[in-house]
Parts: sequence; structure tokens; C-alpha cells
Amino acid sequence: MSFEKLCLHTITTKPWDLQTAVQKYSAAGIGGVSIWRDAAQGFSGGIKAAGEMTRSEGLEIVSYVRGGFFTGLDAATRQVAIDENKKLIDEAAELGAPLIVLVCGATPGQSLFTSREQIAEGLAAVMPHAEAAGVKLGIEPLHPMYADSRSAVSTMAQSNALCDIVDHKNLGITVDVFHVWWDDALEAQIKLTAEKDRLFSFHLCDWKDQPEDMLNDRGLMGEGVIDNRGIRKMVVDAGFKGFDEVEIFSNRYWAMDQDEYLKMITDAYQKHCI
Amino acid sequence: MSFEKLCLHTITTKPWDLQTAVQKYSAAGIGGVSIWRDAAQGFSGGIKAAGEMTRSEGLEIVSYVRGGFFTGLDAATRQVAIDENKKLIDEAAELGAPLIVLVCGATPGQSLFTSREQIAEGLAAVMPHAEAAGVKLGIEPLHPMYADSRSAVSTMAQSNALCDIVDHKNLGITVDVFHVWWDDALEAQIKLTAEKDRLFSFHLCDWKDQPEDMLNDRGLMGEGVIDNRGIRKMVVDAGFKGFDEVEIFSNRYWAMDQDEYLKMITDAYQKHCI
Repeated sequence: MSFEKLCLHTITTKPWDLQTAVQKYSAAGIGGVSIWRDAAQGFSGGIKAAGEMTRSEGLEIVSYVRGGFFTGLDAATRQVAIDENKKLIDEAAELGAPLIVLVCGATPGQSLFTSREQIAEGLAAVMPHAEAAGVKLGIEPLHPMYADSRSAVSTMAQSNALCDIVDHKNLGITVDVFHVWWDDALEAQIKLTAEKDRLFSFHLCDWKDQPEDMLNDRGLMGEGVIDNRGIRKMVVDAGFKGFDEVEIFSNRYWAMDQDEYLKMITDAYQKHCI
Repeated sequence: MSFEKLCLHTITTKPWDLQTAVQKYSAAGIGGVSIWRDAAQGFSGGIKAAGEMTRSEGLEIVSYVRGGFFTGLDAATRQVAIDENKKLIDEAAELGAPLIVLVCGATPGQSLFTSREQIAEGLAAVMPHAEAAGVKLGIEPLHPMYADSRSAVSTMAQSNALCDIVDHKNLGITVDVFHVWWDDALEAQIKLTAEKDRLFSFHLCDWKDQPEDMLNDRGLMGEGVIDNRGIRKMVVDAGFKGFDEVEIFSNRYWAMDQDEYLKMITDAYQKHCI
């Protein structure tokens, strides 16, 4: 069985190092991988070699994860974030990743409106660097339960508003079902995003009924309340031709045999997504 | 010190039974109480006597908590919910509570759009009973992290849409900062709700930065990221004249000395809300 349009995030199978993950994904017929920074940095030969190794195994690198965190109470903190994002952009170029996924940031002690202004400023400051490096940036709206200190950008509409403000062809949106499944504007916003040529990537997983943990208890597609097939259809109908990326943070799945888990992922993808 | 416009939910000081809670609140100069169903049912003399005892201690009963859960995969389940809500309305009337707070429900296995249709149907079915009993119903939009199986109504906008559909003077909205603080439409929606004479009640607490538990780790006002004073100002500016209700679910606070905790609540209310 071939899963040409399926992509796994390295964090999904966190116990595996990059080389193991790439080889296992490749052997399973999976076409793409999104590489988390720690996985790339853990590769002995360096980031460029990590990219070459990945391609030599027949996998396409879909994204480098993750940049952002542009907010802060003072300008010095925000400048550190801007510098760090430029470094990430350089790393993505070296790796051969066409896209960096952004978690935009939020800072307790200031309003979400202020944080979103700072995010727009941070993005504006790094876009020329991204363009020069040939790297795109994808704003990933995060679920409102992460608005405390992870992302003041909670919805597709806010992401599109940011893209309108910054107005750069290398800036777009990453849609993750986990974060946006509840939003009644989802379908309209997916269409709008695609029409504006900024639907950059798409993530699958599931939201379990009453998760045990706010961060690391995501479900495998089919085990929760998200209509993965339905949302994927919205994305495909809007014209998206990219990968279906599986990104699951799960203490439960990380604790199990990863070969067995990989089989469960491809089974769930077939059964509940395509 | 008098806290005439302050109201506590009995669940905030869960270790206390109703009579203890009412006496302690009254001694602290607190003006109101919202009574949870289990607290009322636990009162030895029955629900009517619970209401009399509460008023005899000088407290106003602000709301009875909670009804709703109108969704279900089959009509029989939904009819049970309708019957249960009618019973709750009778209890509220007996208690002398002018308002029932509603958690509207959501059911895994059906879309949020379907759930919201069922909620509208359930509301329409119980409104005549509520009117006859002289009881109002307040839709409480719940945070999107509860959209799996607690509430398909996640926003003020969805709550107002439901009120427009059902269109009954006894149906309105309960605003709880915990659920709606992240919403960029909050201020506009509060104004709209008040203009339509359906801003029925207002709840305070805080959202801690990265809560440990999705349900029972709410913060005391001032210890998290919510601008309680700012949101209260929106509500007051919109014309709301009701109580400031403190509703906190917290394993941490329930485990401590409740007299000491009550003092922390009134201090936090003075310092961070009014």
C-alpha cells in the first residue's frame, strides 16, 4: 500500500530519532515528513545532511516545525524572537523544507489584541528574510484553550486578518483540525484561504471526548469527535493539493510500540480520512 | 465590608453544605448565592425550605445551576432531556430562583450544527413551561474545549443566534469570563446581548496560564490571564445591573480551608474586579 500524500510529523513518533522515523515511514509507503527542530538538530551529520538523508530515503520534506512566539512584554524580548525566527528560516532552507509552521505566541499580562499587533510586527520583520531564503511561513491558528501563553491567534479568521495586514506572498495558513474543528466559520474560512492562495498545509488528528491532558492526549483519527473526512473534503474542494499531515501529541501513543502505532496511523488514515 | 453585588456559586465552596455556605457568605457580607442542584437537593428540609433558609439569612438567590444537555442521537434521549429541564424549572420556582443556567449539550457522533438544531428544539419545547413558572433560562456559551460533549454553543454569537431562533423573552444569555475571554467579538456581543434585554447573568473567575486540568483548575480572579475588571466594565457599560457571580471549580481550592478561601475570594473580587 502506498500513502503518497500522507506525511507524518516526527513528533508523532517521538521515541524514534529522525533516521529511524524516516526509514520506517518510507518502508510504510508514506510520502512526506514534517521535521521538528529537535529531530533535525539531533541528527549527527547536521541539518543539511538530515535533509539529504530524508530525500535519499524517498521522502519529501513538507515542513519544518516550528517558529513564531513573536509576543513579549518588552521590545528586547520580541527582537530575540525575530532573530530566532530568522535563524529558523536559515535552518529550513538548509534542510530543504519549503515551509515553517508558526505558533504565533501570546503573553500573559497583555491583551490578545496587543499580542496580535506584536505578531503582525514580528511577521513583517521576518518576511523579507523568508522570501530571500525561499521559505514560506504558515500561521497555525491554535485552539482557544492555548490563548493564555501559546497563541493569540485562535481562529482562521484571525489568521486571514493577519495575512491581510502583513500582505506577503510567502505568508499563509496551516490548518490543523485539532485547533479549528469547533469553529462554525471553518468551511467559509478554508475557501477564503484557498482563494487567496494561502492555504499552505493541513494537519490531521482527532479530539478525544474529554481529553485527559490539554497538550498530550490527542487522538488518532476516528477515535474522537472530529470529522476528519469532512474537513479534508473542504480543504480538497477548495483546491488544496498538498499533503495530509498527521501530527499527534500523545503520552499514550508515545508509550506504545512505535511500529505497531505506525500501522494504526496508516489504517486510521485509510479508514477515517480518505 | 459589604459585598452586596457579589454572589457565590455553591460549587465554589463545594466542601460546605448549603446551610453552611449560606451562613458563611452572609457573614462575609455577600449579597447573593447561585445554588447548584446537588446543594439544594442535599438540604434536609427540601427545596422550598432551602430557598426559605437562604432568604432568611439575607441572601438573594441569583440562579439555579444547571439545566440544558438537550442533544442526543435519538428523539427519546432528547425527550428525556426536555422532561428533565421541565422538572428543573419546577425546582427553580420552588426554590425561588429567577434563573436557570444552561449548559446546552453536545453529542459525539453528530455535527455541532445538528446539536445546535436540537438545542433550539429543546429550548422551544421548554420555554412555555419556563414562562408559566416565572423562570428565565440563560444559555451559557462554553469554551470551545468543551465542544466535544458538553456544549455545541461555544460563543456569544452562537448564543445570540439561538435566542433569535427561539425568540422568547424568558430566554437569554449567561456570560462567564472563563468561556469567552478569548473571543475577539466579546465586547460587541455583550453590547448586542444587553440591547436585546437578554444579558441575564455574569460569572467571574480566572484562566490560569496552562491549567493542569481542563475542568477543575480554574483560577481566582487576578491569578490568570483574564481581564476580569475589563470584561466587567463591558458588561456594566452595556447596562447590566445584576450580580457578579464567582464560580470556580478547583481541586486545589476545594482542598484548602474554606473560611480562608472565602476571604481570598472577597479580597480578589475587591482587588481585581471592581
